[in-house]
Amino acid sequence: MAKHPLDVLFHPRSIAFVGVSRTPGRAQGPNFLYGLTKRGFHERKPLYLVNPNASEIEGIRCYPSLADCPAPVDHVICSVPSRLALDLVDQAARKHVRSIHFFTAGFEESGDADQAALERELIARARAAGIRVVGPNCLGLYVPAERISFSPDFPEQSGDVFVISQSGGNALELVSGLGARGVFCSGAVSFGNGRDVAAPELFDYAAQDPSTRVVVAYLEGAGTGRALLEALRRCALVKPTIVLKGGVSEGGAAAAASHTASLAGSAQIFESLCRQVGAMRAESLEEALDLVTGVRTALRGVRGPRAIMLASGGGFSVLAADAVARHGVTLPALSARTQARLRAYVPAAGNSVRNPIDASFLDDREGAWPEIIDIVGQAGRSGESDVVLLTSTLGSPAGKDGEPTDRDREMVARIERVQRRGGVPMVCVERGWNSAPTSRQVQRLAQEHGIAVLPSMERAARTVELLLRWRAQREGLPSIF
Amino acid sequence: MAKHPLDVLFHPRSIAFVGVSRTPGRAQGPNFLYGLTKRGFHERKPLYLVNPNASEIEGIRCYPSLADCPAPVDHVICSVPSRLALDLVDQAARKHVRSIHFFTAGFEESGDADQAALERELIARARAAGIRVVGPNCLGLYVPAERISFSPDFPEQSGDVFVISQSGGNALELVSGLGARGVFCSGAVSFGNGRDVAAPELFDYAAQDPSTRVVVAYLEGAGTGRALLEALRRCALVKPTIVLKGGVSEGGAAAAASHTASLAGSAQIFESLCRQVGAMRAESLEEALDLVTGVRTALRGVRGPRAIMLASGGGFSVLAADAVARHGVTLPALSARTQARLRAYVPAAGNSVRNPIDASFLDDREGAWPEIIDIVGQAGRSGESDVVLLTSTLGSPAGKDGEPTDRDREMVARIERVQRRGGVPMVCVERGWNSAPTSRQVQRLAQEHGIAVLPSMERAARTVELLLRWRAQREGLPSIF
Repeated sequence: MAKHPLDVLFHPRSIAFVGVSRTPGRAQGPNFLYGLTKRGFHERKPLYLVNPNASEIEGIRCYPSLADCPAPVDHVICSVPSRLALDLVDQAARKHVRSIHFFTAGFEESGDADQAALERELIARARAAGIRVVGPNCLGLYVPAERISFSPDFPEQSGDVFVISQSGGNALELVSGLGARGVFCSGAVSFGNGRDVAAPELFDYAAQDPSTRVVVAYLEGAGTGRALLEALRRCALVKPTIVLKGGVSEGGAAAAASHTASLAGSAQIFESLCRQVGAMRAESLEEALDLVTGVRTALRGVRGPRAIMLASGGGFSVLAADAVARHGVTLPALSARTQARLRAYVPAAGNSVRNPIDASFLDDREGAWPEIIDIVGQAGRSGESDVVLLTSTLGSPAGKDGEPTDRDREMVARIERVQRRGGVPMVCVERGWNSAPTSRQVQRLAQEHGIAVLPSMERAARTVELLLRWRAQREGLPSIF
Repeated sequence: MAKHPLDVLFHPRSIAFVGVSRTPGRAQGPNFLYGLTKRGFHERKPLYLVNPNASEIEGIRCYPSLADCPAPVDHVICSVPSRLALDLVDQAARKHVRSIHFFTAGFEESGDADQAALERELIARARAAGIRVVGPNCLGLYVPAERISFSPDFPEQSGDVFVISQSGGNALELVSGLGARGVFCSGAVSFGNGRDVAAPELFDYAAQDPSTRVVVAYLEGAGTGRALLEALRRCALVKPTIVLKGGVSEGGAAAAASHTASLAGSAQIFESLCRQVGAMRAESLEEALDLVTGVRTALRGVRGPRAIMLASGGGFSVLAADAVARHGVTLPALSARTQARLRAYVPAAGNSVRNPIDASFLDDREGAWPEIIDIVGQAGRSGESDVVLLTSTLGSPAGKDGEPTDRDREMVARIERVQRRGGVPMVCVERGWNSAPTSRQVQRLAQEHGIAVLPSMERAARTVELLLRWRAQREGLPSIF
């Protein structure tokens, strides 16, 4: 298979970090460097540090300039001030560098015309030298398989989700948020002002990247509108593609201009663009993460909005029913047969076997849970619902350090079997805002078995609503699962 | 001042707990009892346990029946099965008991006509004997000043918020949620099916209770509609009154019928009812808690929807601006003067002094924060905004065990001074879903100084939206602050 032009970014043979500082707390300081050193990039491939005022930083030799580094340097991470950036491009050209990530900010996004002109010149010179540029004004690359990261805290493990983000902060939120759910990345790119490497090309890269199954993007500008639309269409045709668009309000658009010099558009326009190309539009980071969970589990197959809810507490049931209704999810009455079968395991007092089912007061009948799961699963299979929303008891009581307990494994196996047999997805829903989230390890176990864990009944319902909308849009297109 | 008829509930001279179990994990088990014993109710006033099969539970003597307890018994907590409930009322009548809380469930809410009839008979007999009934099917009373609680985990400290809740679970959520914000209760009542003591009388009680400043209620049924409307009006006239109505969807209404045998109504009807009487309608527990925070701090005086946002990170700024716009909160451009003043403290690269202000990259200029707070406060005073939404740095780095640090105290003092001088409320907004909440102690400190801490920019904006709506509804009514 022919290599994609962006492969140079994701598989450098060596890296030079120019302008690295030894001062902790500074953005370009060791914390950023740790993203490479903590996971041992420098033990496998050359990592050159450039700082004329230091002989070593964190035990790694410093060179006075890029020219002084031994060749070849494939990729440069640059955090020198913007006034030194042009000179760095010239040095890199002489060194046959293939790509530069400009952490450096203070270009067009500053609102200053001179700085905008500087940015144009920077890109022009890099293009002339055949150097690809990530940024400026961004955090750059996270490639776990290559031990490259812009955060020391990102997971070392590789996965199948590709994150595209103009904002570095939101890339951090997405990668960390996925990690907290036990979901890992094939790669992530924060591309800031995006004057060379930008969303359209990144969507194309993700579409052809064999390690990527799901694509999630945070965009501010619409880039070169037509190119973005077409790349998004190509990507969404072959892989579930989730897009969160920032700057859809007047205040947000102003913020986007200050942040990445982006010209933002309205929510309506973007919504209709996503509809046209078969991408999912998330309205917040949380929704984007929920959708990743949705498409990576059996929930992606949800066929309609009728849910059986297994709730926890009467007041919880009532508010949860109201909350899911806000997203079009209904709770049809259960058949007499299903109610009778539930009644055998759920005592009358303090409980309910209607829908929502409230089985808070099982007393010592812990063994009732597997039976109840089977019964609601069968009700789903016989057409009483399209999805089961199950107040999660996973991870409770918590295993050591968040590891799954035997009970978690049994529950996951039971739910997986019911899902397989019945074809109705079952979602493990956390009790919500006031409870601790399910551990990363338990969520990972659930995901590996095709079971979605979502943070509240309302967000589970919203995910169902968005998945149904997306599937309707894709009608007639080839299946991507 | 004449005593309110419900005073008997809130100030019993002695309590008998009938049907208490020694089995941990059972709802009527020791956990429930600990609500009384953990805080030492039994060391100040008589606590009699009734269980014919035990001589003592948790070191407290058990009596075989209520009749065997020494007189007087003012208040009975009852968790015997429903078939024994009538007999208990007869025993209580002979003992001149003044109030009974029926934890016991399985009455009208079960959907069984016989059980509904049993409930009617129960209430009739209690009424005939002059006994007030809380419930059935509820958790009962939390009166911190009297060391009475239905949860061992509730705060021991008394406060000024009165919680009225049909649901026990949602009473737990409200009291715990307030506690997590450093806000305490004058009392809380979970009243379940509410066949005697119910919302209208509780609103009247709260309105006249001198220790109550704010009232927050979770309701399922509309009770006897007119009575509820009038009591709510009387309460909302004199104290900020927040109401969350469950069962406003079809599924929620069905759940409410199963839960507390309530006939629920639509969201629109309840919204218009709240508008008529000057109460605030919350749509979720979170919103109810946010509104309590709002009315207990300077935020209650917010005059309009124009905000200055002090954000944290460019991508965060963009999404936060979009999120607040969903609730009508706008971010007007700052004057050239204010921008110039900010620029002296906020370096250009990676930041913005427009609105939202992004001052993420202050590097070692920690001392810039107080100045920035002063500048945005002055901008508010000179008419550039109605409110300041300030990404909170309170509690970070965290003090020992969540205690406020010197830095927290300085920040709180600074914000309080700016609020006082400028008249523009400043909200400390947590970074959101992915960050740890501010500790109870730090939130308490902030509240004591009139400063609201809210969990996200979106929820801060939603609180502003609801407070503005409420103040518009109250136009012409006497001020209650």
